[in-house]
Amino acid sequence: MRTDISGERAVAPGELETHPGLAGRLIDGGHCLTLRVYYEDTDFSGIVYHANYLKFMERGRSDYIRLLGVAQGELFAKAREEAPGFHFVVRSMQLDFRKPAQIDDVLQVVTLSKEVSGASITLLQQVMRAGEVLVSATVRVAFVSEGRAKRIPDALRQATAADAQKLEAAAAEGAAR
Amino acid sequence: MRTDISGERAVAPGELETHPGLAGRLIDGGHCLTLRVYYEDTDFSGIVYHANYLKFMERGRSDYIRLLGVAQGELFAKAREEAPGFHFVVRSMQLDFRKPAQIDDVLQVVTLSKEVSGASITLLQQVMRAGEVLVSATVRVAFVSEGRAKRIPDALRQATAADAQKLEAAAAEGAAR
Amino acid sequence: MRTDISGERAVAPGELETHPGLAGRLIDGGHCLTLRVYYEDTDFSGIVYHANYLKFMERGRSDYIRLLGVAQGELFAKAREEAPGFHFVVRSMQLDFRKPAQIDDVLQVVTLSKEVSGASITLLQQVMRAGEVLVSATVRVAFVSEGRAKRIPDALRQATAADAQKLEAAAAEGAAR
Amino acid sequence: MRTDISGERAVAPGELETHPGLAGRLIDGGHCLTLRVYYEDTDFSGIVYHANYLKFMERGRSDYIRLLGVAQGELFAKAREEAPGFHFVVRSMQLDFRKPAQIDDVLQVVTLSKEVSGASITLLQQVMRAGEVLVSATVRVAFVSEGRAKRIPDALRQATAADAQKLEAAAAEGAAR
Repeated sequence: MRTDISGERAVAPGELETHPGLAGRLIDGGHCLTLRVYYEDTDFSGIVYHANYLKFMERGRSDYIRLLGVAQGELFAKAREEAPGFHFVVRSMQLDFRKPAQIDDVLQVVTLSKEVSGASITLLQQVMRAGEVLVSATVRVAFVSEGRAKRIPDALRQATAADAQKLEAAAAEGAAR
Repeated sequence: MRTDISGERAVAPGELETHPGLAGRLIDGGHCLTLRVYYEDTDFSGIVYHANYLKFMERGRSDYIRLLGVAQGELFAKAREEAPGFHFVVRSMQLDFRKPAQIDDVLQVVTLSKEVSGASITLLQQVMRAGEVLVSATVRVAFVSEGRAKRIPDALRQATAADAQKLEAAAAEGAAR
Repeated sequence: MRTDISGERAVAPGELETHPGLAGRLIDGGHCLTLRVYYEDTDFSGIVYHANYLKFMERGRSDYIRLLGVAQGELFAKAREEAPGFHFVVRSMQLDFRKPAQIDDVLQVVTLSKEVSGASITLLQQVMRAGEVLVSATVRVAFVSEGRAKRIPDALRQATAADAQKLEAAAAEGAAR
Repeated sequence: MRTDISGERAVAPGELETHPGLAGRLIDGGHCLTLRVYYEDTDFSGIVYHANYLKFMERGRSDYIRLLGVAQGELFAKAREEAPGFHFVVRSMQLDFRKPAQIDDVLQVVTLSKEVSGASITLLQQVMRAGEVLVSATVRVAFVSEGRAKRIPDALRQATAADAQKLEAAAAEGAAR
């Protein structure tokens, strides 16, 4: 029962106080994680190896759920009972690689909830450097508990659906201007 | 000048005789590579980590070009002069993760040329196990030499375009039946 | 129960015939695996990222056990009952990085049994290119079943101990000359 | 010229203010980096894949040099001229894997300078969880500029040698008690 989505387990006691930013932060409609490019992320062509952006995006998704769990501790405790050993599985991805990141770069991974159904969540994810989008993705994830696809626990569904509504509202507002 | 696409360099002398299958084999319309799932490819949920299928597909693309180079040695020698330090860059990917692979699995990575233009090649790639598709992808790659996008060398363009025509002919034949 | 050491599971039916060399081959005193360096293995400095040699060596160890299992099918079937879900854990490593490997290189991973005790096996491992040692390692592995250290199953202990004796005999012979 | 050891390049402008802790922090005798275990770091046995601790340690070494560069900006500017394109190469490692880390764990990577010579630096590195050592290593690194081993630039040698003296003094004091 490792990937518990409840606040108690996924964030160590005192962690948020001692290491602010380690799990990124919640933003309007989603989450933002800052990370750095190390040797391990690059390949001989001098830039980040394309598959490693998927690792960055998975870190962003994990920390998004982690912080939603902290923010809504009681609701997530219930989810924990509903689905022990709960974790994400990526079902599909559409990826655009626009510009390369390089060694030592500081990157932001932005994760936004776009659409939430009973069985899956569609996320928009962007890997950015200094405000510029390097890689963008649409990612559909499903949820699995004990080896089987499961309905998304209510607490998580409500939290991400609220974020998706914010995103939609922001888009509508942008279009109206 | 490491990623030479000419036959001389990318396949070591005597390699194909000593290690048949190490670089997979050319098939009708493309290439097939057999590989195994090791510890490094899995994650704690017990299955192959999603980003690692992209590594498998990149191995397939690399070996496809490698063997095209061997098959058409003279033409590729010219490409080598046209574009030193030549390598692939992935521009976009559409990925479907259907079924998970597990430790010790023997997988086939099938790479088929779908569309070839002056600046990019679109490939269909499938990761299969015992005839069943686990992951399928449409991958658009561009070519870079000395840090800049380059026109695809004639030899490579002709070889992949010939494969794309075979694929189209096979699809048309299938539809006609 | 994935990392079964018995012959039946770890090698797919017909695999050795269809893909000779995929799991390397048993040699005097141990095992040899041939593999290629791909993009994923390199870093921006142009050579193989140091931690990735450990992946190569783990592939070698996995395939060594796999082929011992094939060679001694009946004995390993017993080991399977003794220790379900059995797998290796590395306890310590001494590594020497002598020369770098590069993209497209074809490498040999040689794994030799050096010392076998009830609870651990010490292996000598070398990553080689065209007969030249690039990285050498002494690796002590223990065995774990269902999360706990376990005594090495008899079949595996006998097979590796026999290899260790061959290695010692060869060393003694070399010293006597 | 990517892995510049000078302060100007390796730390983006304003980064230390905006993201305190992203590059860890200098401690007495060395450096400490906090990081989290993600999906990508684990394998199917449920724990961190052994080779991935080497990635954690490399992140620690990179950030140690990065922050030494920030602390001693003027001296490192000189090093930059002495050795453009400067980076670390690991020559040897002695590794002890004591306890496993798991998904979601928050880890500390402690890097201490132990011995500094003209051509190499020996570091002690420990991966810890809540004060407990999980993996410990002795790592000897050399320096390379433009593909060749180079003498360590004075600024870096002095900074790490000062740390090594602190470590020795602390050890002597501990022994005297």
